[in-house]
Amino acid sequence: MIELTTSYLEEAIEDSRPFAASGNVNMNLPNFDETMKDRLGVSVITTDLECYSAGEHRQFVPMQSTSKVIGLMLALQDFGKERVFNAVGMEPMGDFFNSISQLESYDTTKPFNPMINAGAIAVSAMIKGQSPENRFNRYLEFLREITDNEKLDMSEDVYEAERANGSRNRALAYFMHSTGTLVTDVEEALDLYYRMNSVMMCCDDFARVGLFLARGGRSPRSNERLIPSNHLRTVKAIMMTSGMYNSSGHYAVEAGFPCKSGVSGSIIGAIPGRMGIGVVGPAIDEKGNSTAGGALIKKLAQDLGLNMFGENGGTG
Amino acid sequence: MIELTTSYLEEAIEDSRPFAASGNVNMNLPNFDETMKDRLGVSVITTDLECYSAGEHRQFVPMQSTSKVIGLMLALQDFGKERVFNAVGMEPMGDFFNSISQLESYDTTKPFNPMINAGAIAVSAMIKGQSPENRFNRYLEFLREITDNEKLDMSEDVYEAERANGSRNRALAYFMHSTGTLVTDVEEALDLYYRMNSVMMCCDDFARVGLFLARGGRSPRSNERLIPSNHLRTVKAIMMTSGMYNSSGHYAVEAGFPCKSGVSGSIIGAIPGRMGIGVVGPAIDEKGNSTAGGALIKKLAQDLGLNMFGENGGTG
Amino acid sequence: MIELTTSYLEEAIEDSRPFAASGNVNMNLPNFDETMKDRLGVSVITTDLECYSAGEHRQFVPMQSTSKVIGLMLALQDFGKERVFNAVGMEPMGDFFNSISQLESYDTTKPFNPMINAGAIAVSAMIKGQSPENRFNRYLEFLREITDNEKLDMSEDVYEAERANGSRNRALAYFMHSTGTLVTDVEEALDLYYRMNSVMMCCDDFARVGLFLARGGRSPRSNERLIPSNHLRTVKAIMMTSGMYNSSGHYAVEAGFPCKSGVSGSIIGAIPGRMGIGVVGPAIDEKGNSTAGGALIKKLAQDLGLNMFGENGGTG
Amino acid sequence: MIELTTSYLEEAIEDSRPFAASGNVNMNLPNFDETMKDRLGVSVITTDLECYSAGEHRQFVPMQSTSKVIGLMLALQDFGKERVFNAVGMEPMGDFFNSISQLESYDTTKPFNPMINAGAIAVSAMIKGQSPENRFNRYLEFLREITDNEKLDMSEDVYEAERANGSRNRALAYFMHSTGTLVTDVEEALDLYYRMNSVMMCCDDFARVGLFLARGGRSPRSNERLIPSNHLRTVKAIMMTSGMYNSSGHYAVEAGFPCKSGVSGSIIGAIPGRMGIGVVGPAIDEKGNSTAGGALIKKLAQDLGLNMFGENGGTG
Repeated sequence: MIELTTSYLEEAIEDSRPFAASGNVNMNLPNFDETMKDRLGVSVITTDLECYSAGEHRQFVPMQSTSKVIGLMLALQDFGKERVFNAVGMEPMGDFFNSISQLESYDTTKPFNPMINAGAIAVSAMIKGQSPENRFNRYLEFLREITDNEKLDMSEDVYEAERANGSRNRALAYFMHSTGTLVTDVEEALDLYYRMNSVMMCCDDFARVGLFLARGGRSPRSNERLIPSNHLRTVKAIMMTSGMYNSSGHYAVEAGFPCKSGVSGSIIGAIPGRMGIGVVGPAIDEKGNSTAGGALIKKLAQDLGLNMFGENGGTG
Repeated sequence: MIELTTSYLEEAIEDSRPFAASGNVNMNLPNFDETMKDRLGVSVITTDLECYSAGEHRQFVPMQSTSKVIGLMLALQDFGKERVFNAVGMEPMGDFFNSISQLESYDTTKPFNPMINAGAIAVSAMIKGQSPENRFNRYLEFLREITDNEKLDMSEDVYEAERANGSRNRALAYFMHSTGTLVTDVEEALDLYYRMNSVMMCCDDFARVGLFLARGGRSPRSNERLIPSNHLRTVKAIMMTSGMYNSSGHYAVEAGFPCKSGVSGSIIGAIPGRMGIGVVGPAIDEKGNSTAGGALIKKLAQDLGLNMFGENGGTG
Repeated sequence: MIELTTSYLEEAIEDSRPFAASGNVNMNLPNFDETMKDRLGVSVITTDLECYSAGEHRQFVPMQSTSKVIGLMLALQDFGKERVFNAVGMEPMGDFFNSISQLESYDTTKPFNPMINAGAIAVSAMIKGQSPENRFNRYLEFLREITDNEKLDMSEDVYEAERANGSRNRALAYFMHSTGTLVTDVEEALDLYYRMNSVMMCCDDFARVGLFLARGGRSPRSNERLIPSNHLRTVKAIMMTSGMYNSSGHYAVEAGFPCKSGVSGSIIGAIPGRMGIGVVGPAIDEKGNSTAGGALIKKLAQDLGLNMFGENGGTG
Repeated sequence: MIELTTSYLEEAIEDSRPFAASGNVNMNLPNFDETMKDRLGVSVITTDLECYSAGEHRQFVPMQSTSKVIGLMLALQDFGKERVFNAVGMEPMGDFFNSISQLESYDTTKPFNPMINAGAIAVSAMIKGQSPENRFNRYLEFLREITDNEKLDMSEDVYEAERANGSRNRALAYFMHSTGTLVTDVEEALDLYYRMNSVMMCCDDFARVGLFLARGGRSPRSNERLIPSNHLRTVKAIMMTSGMYNSSGHYAVEAGFPCKSGVSGSIIGAIPGRMGIGVVGPAIDEKGNSTAGGALIKKLAQDLGLNMFGENGGTG
């Protein structure tokens, strides 16, 4: 086992960076271009609050699908497990994250799980608030608290790009509306979803979200438990089976701890009782996962003994 | 947290037994009838080799799909990870375990993972041996060693029933043969698969298999490592994402440790570094999992702190 | 063979009316209620312009899917066969008319044919015009000419109901927009589609559309050919293979001539060189076809020798 | 309109032969090789029994899927329409002819129609006979009578090749057995199916089958009606909607009369009341239809006015 130090992380970054070559930057995102391709950063924060960073860990990218983790926590808080999983399943699916056939071809029209787009749209429609603004503010305030970063905010440019490229998500949402899975106003639900995806974060922030999950849902400000343990277990289990798009099974084998990725090249990792990890590497594979970031996650699992299926249950 | 004792297990059995009422006994299996319905047994063996049992833990049932775990270990040993996962995927699928559409509708004709029937047939065709008898004997000898039970053997009646009800598996195997996924003799591959499913075991044996996975692949006889750690991690990760048929996501959330079930009502559980669990409860739900056995597994996870996604990573 | 007379049609109506009992009125349509259930009307116009009617042949209902026939004729006229079938296929599909999986699960994202909703939305987006109003007016003027009925118009109530229940069609259209199949403004395309579906017609008008198809595309006013013969052949062939939703194969066998139905209980029939038929019977089956109307169509085919697969090719 | 003469057919052959270049010969069939690629033959027999032939009309090829037409006639004769279509549907499907997903993914496990492999296996299992030999003999005798060709027989080589490449059909048949769609012995059903596909015929024979369908099911020997008219109508309608694999819709539009093709490059055409057509052109497209043969069929439709959707209903 290797000891976690800054210099170890720096080496790990340089070992993993070449994997960026096999990926592509998602050019639909504003300011994402070829110059982003080989950027790679990582932050790790242990449950005793030691922080380590390396590479371009201050590179801000939009949350994209990593927002699904936050949305699920808030919906569980607001409606409880039973009602949330009445609207959306908790089964992994061996298909692409934005599948619409899945909604049609099974007995149930419930989206398979909250980590696919359809499921996340249905789940985020459950975040409480008196108005659309209010609901997004609640999301943003929660995110600011758990990352202890008051400056986090949505990018208007990303939000506009999400809306402009939103036909597939619109199709998913209107389909769910037609089957009664989505009962709220469709355009409002989509608007919130786009806003959630557009919040800009860097590795430090992503690592803070991972730490929040790994450390009992405690606020870094007050140390209070903000989300009950059982909801956190639920979120982490779903990240394990479904967090890395159509490669979730691969990451369960090769990393062995709960992760959630976004097409901005971001990854949140949460090793229960040990640490949170934030990675940003914008070159993604055809499944949607950061190529260099994924390589880095697997290397950390191996070197630091984080694989929960190891003999010691990921404890070293 | 509750302490693991025999009397705790006895209470847990009685609390879980009523769930048998919502299930049905698989009448295709010889000697399976209504009198089996409310039987429920459990054995737990900790990594420091303490054994606890309760209920009908001496009820023998055929392995059925729990054999997939053994087949995967042997194939990994014989061909290595790369070649095995060249023939079969490692992604969970949100569909029934014996789906044939899955084989047809995706770009690849690889079965999704080794825990579904198609995948398991392809994987068990990789167990080495000079003749069909030889290959089954290797499987049986391995099973006898890791359970330390020389008496384990195949039931001829179950084997005959498997063959007689084998049209669906035949369809899967011939389909894979037509696409080049299965290159060996189809009838031989099926024959081995039927034999593997027909070995009779009780809770003590199932728990021994779980312990083997949880404790670094050590023989209970020689204490030697029979299967390398990285293969065991692979098997446990795949059990977590895909071991409980189409309810795997549900069990990842509600139990939170690797399990594999069979339609005989058997369940193998493996909590890395802590314990192996064997359950038998013949009444199964429409997904194929023991109803009372599943309830028991979830209760143990909760009471004994076995959920790996908990704050302490399943260590209490 | 029975001779076509008004009294024969009256008998045929009374023989077919009882089949209404097995259907249901589509209550999403304004003014559609239980009192509509057993209405049934028919008009037949031969190519030598003899007209026969019976039953409630003056019952007006919205065109619904029968509009797809008109949209396809206009798009063929405006863009030609090659360009239209570059955007939409011409293969029948064994699935429900509003399937979205079909759009996702095949190599191509082209809708299967112009008779399913997705295909019809894509096709009607090809009707030329300088503005949305202009395009609908062109549709309406064409319809007025071929039915020789200047009074035909859209029902505002039906249009509003179409819009209000439009989530499924919105999902189809946005999905096609996301794949590049639909390149025009989605909301405009849907608006035109809803308007087309909302034009009110009775049996006489539906029969006139059938006659237009059966008689070389001649205007009943000027006797001029408005649509070239080869486009009419195309439309009739597609009606035969795909015009009766998921029962198209059944009607090819049992009626044996080109038909197109709508969920308002309307049916257009076209027997090349012989006659046009219009039927209205609001009680529909779960596929979307009028139950009494379908029975009547099959009876006429049998009694009047209209089945084109008969020994005399439907000529008696 | 062009007059049907031998010299016209010779020209039509030479016009169509170049389309062979875009196809490929099915090398799984014995004696099928590159030298077969640009062969093309045609025979036409009118209902007043005039015969015209051109090109390699004496080239013998195995029936392959054209046997489905014969099997359906015999099953209808033996069990009647109701029982046959209780076991198999009559709806076209927009999918490849040997799809197994179709069997799984719909409510019903009935094969879509008798022209796809699954449907044909189920249908041919309905041909009556006291033994397998007896059932095949009945098929062969019927074929000899309607083609008036006592020499027709099965090729042992083709039969062996069918068996050797039969995994996909085996998968289909075992799947249907597992769902209860196929209740007879699977291996016997497959054996009959392989034999039926292996009968060798040339254009003259295929044209005779077409004529039989076009001319009221009369024996060319006795002029007696061997199959009732309503069964022939059913067969022709199903050929129209489903006879040309996944291009059936295309052929309904472009040829407009009932056809059935086989992967040996054979096509049977039946124009009710007018003529039977037999075509052989071994180069096939990826759907399974003869490329040059298909071009020829479409040319004949156009030149001879055979399209039933034309103004005169295909009567010139």
